[in-house]
Amino acid sequence: MSESHVPASASSELAARARKLDAEDGLAALRGRFVLDEDEGVYLDGNSLGALPANVPDRIADVVRRQWGELRIRSWEESGWWTAPERVGDRIAPLVGAAPGQIVVGDSTSVNVFKALVAAVRMAREDHGDGRDEILVDATTFPTDGYIAGSVARLTGCALRPVTPAEVPGALSSRTAAVLLNHVDYRTGRLHDLPSLTAAVHAAGAYAVWDLCHSAGALPVGLDEHGVGLAVGCTYKYLNGGPGSPAFLYIRQDLQDRFDSPLPGWNSHADPFGMKDVYEPAEGALRGRVGTPGILSLLALEAALEVWEGVPIEAVRAKSLALTDFFLECVAAYVPAGRVESLTPVAHEERGSQVALRCPDAGEVMKRLIARGVVGDFRRPDVLRFGFTPLYVRFADVERAARVLAETLGS
Amino acid sequence: MSESHVPASASSELAARARKLDAEDGLAALRGRFVLDEDEGVYLDGNSLGALPANVPDRIADVVRRQWGELRIRSWEESGWWTAPERVGDRIAPLVGAAPGQIVVGDSTSVNVFKALVAAVRMAREDHGDGRDEILVDATTFPTDGYIAGSVARLTGCALRPVTPAEVPGALSSRTAAVLLNHVDYRTGRLHDLPSLTAAVHAAGAYAVWDLCHSAGALPVGLDEHGVGLAVGCTYKYLNGGPGSPAFLYIRQDLQDRFDSPLPGWNSHADPFGMKDVYEPAEGALRGRVGTPGILSLLALEAALEVWEGVPIEAVRAKSLALTDFFLECVAAYVPAGRVESLTPVAHEERGSQVALRCPDAGEVMKRLIARGVVGDFRRPDVLRFGFTPLYVRFADVERAARVLAETLGS
Repeated sequence: MSESHVPASASSELAARARKLDAEDGLAALRGRFVLDEDEGVYLDGNSLGALPANVPDRIADVVRRQWGELRIRSWEESGWWTAPERVGDRIAPLVGAAPGQIVVGDSTSVNVFKALVAAVRMAREDHGDGRDEILVDATTFPTDGYIAGSVARLTGCALRPVTPAEVPGALSSRTAAVLLNHVDYRTGRLHDLPSLTAAVHAAGAYAVWDLCHSAGALPVGLDEHGVGLAVGCTYKYLNGGPGSPAFLYIRQDLQDRFDSPLPGWNSHADPFGMKDVYEPAEGALRGRVGTPGILSLLALEAALEVWEGVPIEAVRAKSLALTDFFLECVAAYVPAGRVESLTPVAHEERGSQVALRCPDAGEVMKRLIARGVVGDFRRPDVLRFGFTPLYVRFADVERAARVLAETLGS
Repeated sequence: MSESHVPASASSELAARARKLDAEDGLAALRGRFVLDEDEGVYLDGNSLGALPANVPDRIADVVRRQWGELRIRSWEESGWWTAPERVGDRIAPLVGAAPGQIVVGDSTSVNVFKALVAAVRMAREDHGDGRDEILVDATTFPTDGYIAGSVARLTGCALRPVTPAEVPGALSSRTAAVLLNHVDYRTGRLHDLPSLTAAVHAAGAYAVWDLCHSAGALPVGLDEHGVGLAVGCTYKYLNGGPGSPAFLYIRQDLQDRFDSPLPGWNSHADPFGMKDVYEPAEGALRGRVGTPGILSLLALEAALEVWEGVPIEAVRAKSLALTDFFLECVAAYVPAGRVESLTPVAHEERGSQVALRCPDAGEVMKRLIARGVVGDFRRPDVLRFGFTPLYVRFADVERAARVLAETLGS
């Protein structure tokens, strides 16, 4: 395979820069908290499935062998299984700018979008009457959000109106009940303006539900600071919770008493072991619980969150931007002009922690990249997606990925 | 502690019977497929959390270290993660009398009750019009089913009417859309007549949703044979899937095209990676999927189901009845008359795989039993609940449990 497409002088200069940036990186040591083989290649798919934190295998072995195998049913109390959804929620809270007691973990993101959006519509109607009969949904959203929003609209008698985030302020009206928005676009990596959009939705008397799947663990969210009412997010991307680890639901403290769940399972009852005929919701965020949580997946996530000890999310954000800046710079230097087009905004305030490059043969290109050890993912029809997890991605990885990409595109 | 309450002759005779029954038990060797310390006591809480199958720890270690830690995102395809919900469903199928392709695993029981019940109401209305505006729910049900049914009623504009299973045939009318029933009562262990109740519900033009939490893995269910349309069940009781392992949803083959889920997540899309704006449901039972499944919990369940290889559910049922018969006999022989009252029916056709004994101080009694190594559970206000998992409970365990119970009650 020819490497002639990568100018040797640029490569040498950027590789040297990468070494320097890694040497100066205050977060560099965090990579040691993950299971990553130094020789194996470059993993840039942490925005789909985060790498394995090093403490997880032993923890899960203990959960299986001792907590389940020996203590069995006693573990619901003695091993803290019963309270894990709130406890793990409180571990996530500082990463998304939330005070304790507002996040509960469990179920999938889709199920949590459903809970939050139904609850949002109900609150809007409680505030303003049944004239609130429209749900706005981000037209560029990850599809499941749109499908679930459609179901919520149908079950609550609302109309569903897809609009781009930029169109939201103009689309808000006295009919708007709820607005489902993505903090970071899953495809392009564009970061939307959470503070101003939240304020606009609230000013219209509606409730915003934020999907934080692609921002939680990658950048500061500031849920409390910006007065967000409801948010959901996944934990297997930048939070490294493992395949299909449970999602989280944020319910702002002052809305918890009003959170009227469409999935009022016994785990959210005020007296769950009372086995009462009549549903009486618990106080607090645990009102968002439903049925018995998948303990293995939940406790793997709990262990995974320990890698964040002492890690300020602001430092993660700074490194994330440095990584994506550097990747764009390396791509510009190495890849022949016009061969790829970046869909990811250049402005920092509009960028998440991924870079999406459009090229016509993206599917084939990604296969070849993976064969050469650079793992990103392909999004139809023509997008190469690279995620940068600041906890374990190095600048040297970034330079190498861009170089291999250029070689692959040129071959 | 005095043992004078247990007549020595009876004890000696029943202990000898237990040894003989264990020696003749064709399923006795299955106990070796579980992690159970011979000296530790008697575990009669498998109807709450099944014991740990011996093959699970190594399997989960492999899932964590190799599939997640090394293959990472590639495991969705290479390790079969993506198709696990259907594959594990097909493992459960023979245990509940279902042909392949009708069961999908994922989410909690509560969430699956929600899906099934909304889908049932929608089908009834498609068949007979919107006049179908009533949901019947087993008034003796595990509470979460009633709470979820209440939510379904509210979202679909139905009335919710709690009735006992015996009252169902008389309560059915041209208003009935759906009926949510338990196969085995969680508290008393009473087995309800699934074939005749299903037939009655269908004759009324409605759909039955069966909750199999306390029968799946304990006795033959015969879903296909009895024409059941929709059923859900949990997998951490008699199926030993581990704490909070995902629930299952059965959708009869000929209803799959009509299954209109209220939780149409992207995992149930006909082309999930097409990332289409418009929801188009997949064919088959996987239409019951929602979001990304919790892989650790799901694959622990898959490993746990391997203990069933070569085990006919009819043999399990025969041993289950022998165990509960023997327990009732030992209790009658050992426990002073009038000290406890069995809530569990004597007739085999009305009994699940547990025995519920009422006594006024049940909470205290269960604490003392557990301290002496006999683990059952307490259900408020006054019920001692003992579950008998035929795969690993021995007749000697049964005799010992009854003896310790008598001693505890007499002390």
